[in-house]
Amino acid sequence: MRKKAIILIAEGFEEIEAISCIDILRRGGIEVLVSGINSLQIKGSRGITVVADKLLKDSGIDFDACIIPGGSQGAENLAKSKEVKDFILTINAQGKIIAAICAAPAAVLTPTGILKGKHVTGYPGKEEEFDKDTIYSQEKVVVDSNIITSQGPATAIEFALTILTKLTGEEIALKVRKAILAI
Amino acid sequence: MRKKAIILIAEGFEEIEAISCIDILRRGGIEVLVSGINSLQIKGSRGITVVADKLLKDSGIDFDACIIPGGSQGAENLAKSKEVKDFILTINAQGKIIAAICAAPAAVLTPTGILKGKHVTGYPGKEEEFDKDTIYSQEKVVVDSNIITSQGPATAIEFALTILTKLTGEEIALKVRKAILAI
Repeated sequence: MRKKAIILIAEGFEEIEAISCIDILRRGGIEVLVSGINSLQIKGSRGITVVADKLLKDSGIDFDACIIPGGSQGAENLAKSKEVKDFILTINAQGKIIAAICAAPAAVLTPTGILKGKHVTGYPGKEEEFDKDTIYSQEKVVVDSNIITSQGPATAIEFALTILTKLTGEEIALKVRKAILAI
Repeated sequence: MRKKAIILIAEGFEEIEAISCIDILRRGGIEVLVSGINSLQIKGSRGITVVADKLLKDSGIDFDACIIPGGSQGAENLAKSKEVKDFILTINAQGKIIAAICAAPAAVLTPTGILKGKHVTGYPGKEEEFDKDTIYSQEKVVVDSNIITSQGPATAIEFALTILTKLTGEEIALKVRKAILAI
């Protein structure tokens, strides 16, 4: 059965981070739902408007991965939504992948409590925003059990390929890596 | 005065390539117009719908750079538009930047004749689609006078930073490079 991912998009999301994930996962055969928080037309941090597939409230909970892009304002908008917090906790409780990049690991995941004792990364300079028992490292991508975190726009392709590898295995991810010339 | 760029978007455009250019150029202070060929809502090669700022016919011709993303279908759709061909020839005749990536250098620029005698690159495997007097090389980004070409999704950030450098100089481009962590 095809693996499914959802990406949570709120006003102010970082466009390169979100689009790289959707594009690369779909290239790898993942069914990706672009889920808007309060609207179906959502403007990113650099003014690019993207059309979501569904609102989060209509998206269901049947996903193998939940992806959370950065963008300071976008991550803040996700962080202040109780619906988003509950959704992340539901997906995490099923042991499915939670993947966050840039501002999102600190701003969105820390308040959910799921980063306690986990190794993570995020946009440099956000180290202080993690709880004390979260272990931050300066890597492009960090995987700790079901949690995948990454740093920013220029690490988004490696982040997406890491999620794809977790979902489909090395072979498909390598095929996509070659096709997009990330070699 | 702020520099202006236009990006030409047709159904089937490659999303990472287009979005990386818009995002990075706007970060560098460039006024970027997202121009739709036949529609204001345009679906990319991986099913992501982006909202354009204007239709090409309403976009004017006052730009310092014209950017042409790939995606086989997107590039084909651009290539079959006489309006697009005339627009590229107009911008090129002013000596302004023409920047194309992936399928676009061969599919869109070759028929305009502006690549004659130029050094270019493009998606590997597209070498045969260039005219004989166009010099293809396997580089991530190639700059030859006002023509900037690049290879594919994973080279889009370097492509965009090269365009930004040409438009604004090294200092601003380096600031953006650091901010997006392309270091």
